[in-house]
Amino acid sequence: MNYEKWVHHELEELSKSLGFRYTPDDELQGRLARVRNGMEKQEMEGLLVIQKMACYYLSGTTQDSMLHVPLEGKPLLMVKREVERARIESPLEEVVAMKSLGELPDLIHTHYGKLPETMGLELDVLPVKDYLRFQDLFPGTKVLDGSSVIREARKIKSPYEIDLMRVAGNIGEKVYVRGREILKEGMTEIEFGGLLEAAAKRYGHEGLLRVRSLNYEAYTWHVLSGPTGGIVSQSDSPMGGLGLSPAFPVGASRRPMRRQEPILVDFGTCYHGYQADETRMFSIGPMDKKFTDAYEVCRDIHDTVLEQTRPGADCEELFHKTVILAKKLGYKDTYLGPPGLQTRFVGHGIGLELNEVPFLAKGHSYPLEEGMTFAVEPKIVFPGEGAVGLENTVAVTRDGYEILTPLALDIFQV
Amino acid sequence: MNYEKWVHHELEELSKSLGFRYTPDDELQGRLARVRNGMEKQEMEGLLVIQKMACYYLSGTTQDSMLHVPLEGKPLLMVKREVERARIESPLEEVVAMKSLGELPDLIHTHYGKLPETMGLELDVLPVKDYLRFQDLFPGTKVLDGSSVIREARKIKSPYEIDLMRVAGNIGEKVYVRGREILKEGMTEIEFGGLLEAAAKRYGHEGLLRVRSLNYEAYTWHVLSGPTGGIVSQSDSPMGGLGLSPAFPVGASRRPMRRQEPILVDFGTCYHGYQADETRMFSIGPMDKKFTDAYEVCRDIHDTVLEQTRPGADCEELFHKTVILAKKLGYKDTYLGPPGLQTRFVGHGIGLELNEVPFLAKGHSYPLEEGMTFAVEPKIVFPGEGAVGLENTVAVTRDGYEILTPLALDIFQV
Repeated sequence: MNYEKWVHHELEELSKSLGFRYTPDDELQGRLARVRNGMEKQEMEGLLVIQKMACYYLSGTTQDSMLHVPLEGKPLLMVKREVERARIESPLEEVVAMKSLGELPDLIHTHYGKLPETMGLELDVLPVKDYLRFQDLFPGTKVLDGSSVIREARKIKSPYEIDLMRVAGNIGEKVYVRGREILKEGMTEIEFGGLLEAAAKRYGHEGLLRVRSLNYEAYTWHVLSGPTGGIVSQSDSPMGGLGLSPAFPVGASRRPMRRQEPILVDFGTCYHGYQADETRMFSIGPMDKKFTDAYEVCRDIHDTVLEQTRPGADCEELFHKTVILAKKLGYKDTYLGPPGLQTRFVGHGIGLELNEVPFLAKGHSYPLEEGMTFAVEPKIVFPGEGAVGLENTVAVTRDGYEILTPLALDIFQV
Repeated sequence: MNYEKWVHHELEELSKSLGFRYTPDDELQGRLARVRNGMEKQEMEGLLVIQKMACYYLSGTTQDSMLHVPLEGKPLLMVKREVERARIESPLEEVVAMKSLGELPDLIHTHYGKLPETMGLELDVLPVKDYLRFQDLFPGTKVLDGSSVIREARKIKSPYEIDLMRVAGNIGEKVYVRGREILKEGMTEIEFGGLLEAAAKRYGHEGLLRVRSLNYEAYTWHVLSGPTGGIVSQSDSPMGGLGLSPAFPVGASRRPMRRQEPILVDFGTCYHGYQADETRMFSIGPMDKKFTDAYEVCRDIHDTVLEQTRPGADCEELFHKTVILAKKLGYKDTYLGPPGLQTRFVGHGIGLELNEVPFLAKGHSYPLEEGMTFAVEPKIVFPGEGAVGLENTVAVTRDGYEILTPLALDIFQV
């Protein structure tokens, strides 16, 4: 049997019958136009895209590839493994095989008749070893930092992207509803988290959340009960949880969950790479008034942010307003973390990764724009006792917002 | 309540009661001695460790930190978040808070009285942006590539490390046994994979496998049935599977599993960061003779590798012997992938990451040493039809090997 032929017949059929959606060509052309707009401003003749999610954004495939985007002319997708599958997944016309990095200059030269004089590389994530190799391979080319070009293009989502996030949000809703049936007294956090994840995968979640960074590991489940909700850990988050060992000190732990304590579940879902992030509270029996009061404050803060969410609203200002409101309501020292360890953001952009623009955060003074998507997550932490909070993912519309995580905001009491 | 005090009392108690093991000081000193041995050979005065698993290996914590290892003197752990927790997890004496990267030169200078003249950085993974910042912060320091120093030190595992891998292997055994109870005709690959993962977490698996690389995403489940076993995807693996979308085109898919077809389950487990990797075959009813015959060949190849596994055996030679044996037995074109897409390795080192030394692979001519650990995974692929194979994780002992994944090799027929 010829593998190549099989891929272009059976594999494509099988993929489509099992729900694969391929990025349409006009969607990709819109993204490429935004990237070229940024390249032009920086006088960048070529942009070499290497990081997996950036490649997916601009080519439609996550096969092991590099993508060269010229300021003028057709993009060239160079695929290490597996090129026939990339040809199915990407609507780009120019998709070629590349055996090793050493072939890169020849492939680019053959395709464009010359090498670019200036080339953008993703200096925010590209390893130094690869960068030094590029300098050897392209001795006459001036290297520029292309990461902001990609970041800026991606901050505005198209209707196609927002639709994929809506699907992710709908998967999340089913997971939380199912969680109410699963949760039992005495079950450990990690057992609950594992069962939520298994349910999520059955409903269509792809199992992985992504972050553009060397060391930050994305993971799906964050099930924190009572005191584990008050633990800060390695991540820039109001609470990190206990986790399972010093090698994985975040998220769910082996602690059995008890009656009346706050159980915070922060669970992201992913569909065709696009993510929705949400947090809801669970409890076994009613939780103490201290926690329900604090949860109401988180709802107030959440509602206040959304009331002001529209194009033109300043991201840093939105953050500061929540700090002022928390203080006014008596939660100055517990809002967004324990005293001295409080985080400085109440929202983060989200799409293919969890750390996209915009950030509703200190030092991020820029306006919201139509098509931006972000997760807003006010949280209150009582060290030693527990944490409460909620989180929704929203898209900025022409005159307001749309919630992409449609789940009810009530506490899930079982 | 004082958070710092709470961490040093309640959090430490809670962690220990839930099974946290902290790396002992003498274990850490042995690792540091191996690293310093490598530094000395390269005339490296200091080594700045940044990547998460390298930090864990040399400090015992994965809190957000940087570790400076001097050729002489005490290592300095500088922690961004969260320093009190790092103080519990690490037996190192010098653990200090670091607010931003800009503080790095001052912290090192204060601690050692001077800045190092030569400093190793992990150029294989360090992003260029951080590298350029280091050059600004340490203008008088010559940067060397420290990645091989870390890689070489880690290739030999201590009895402590091998013991953690044994625990991971025992978790894996329980998962596969449970899999026999879960598997049902018509269940999709992803549903089966999700339930295996949920079981694994209940048994102690930490949920994440790791790879030292920019783009390679580690994931746990690889459930491939019938034709999806014959699909090559982005990874350097004999088969990648169909996956769930172009954004996640590897591993389990939404395909319902059928009677009599080969179901390959490649499932890694992780305990305190240390991994065990294994593959077994499942089937619903007996699978076709074509597949059971090929599976017997994989067993022969597996046994042949292990018979020759001892200190001094050459890794490339071991690989070549398996290629010759596969050819002799009639599987030249199907061994390790479809024709033209066959991989060039039958084993990979494993420990904190899935791509450690040694590689039983083409171009890797060096001897096995006592304390090395690797996964051996002969696989045979019939494009369009299915894949078979098995995988065990082993440690090289003084005169042979120990299997760390103790599960029976029989096909799990339900």
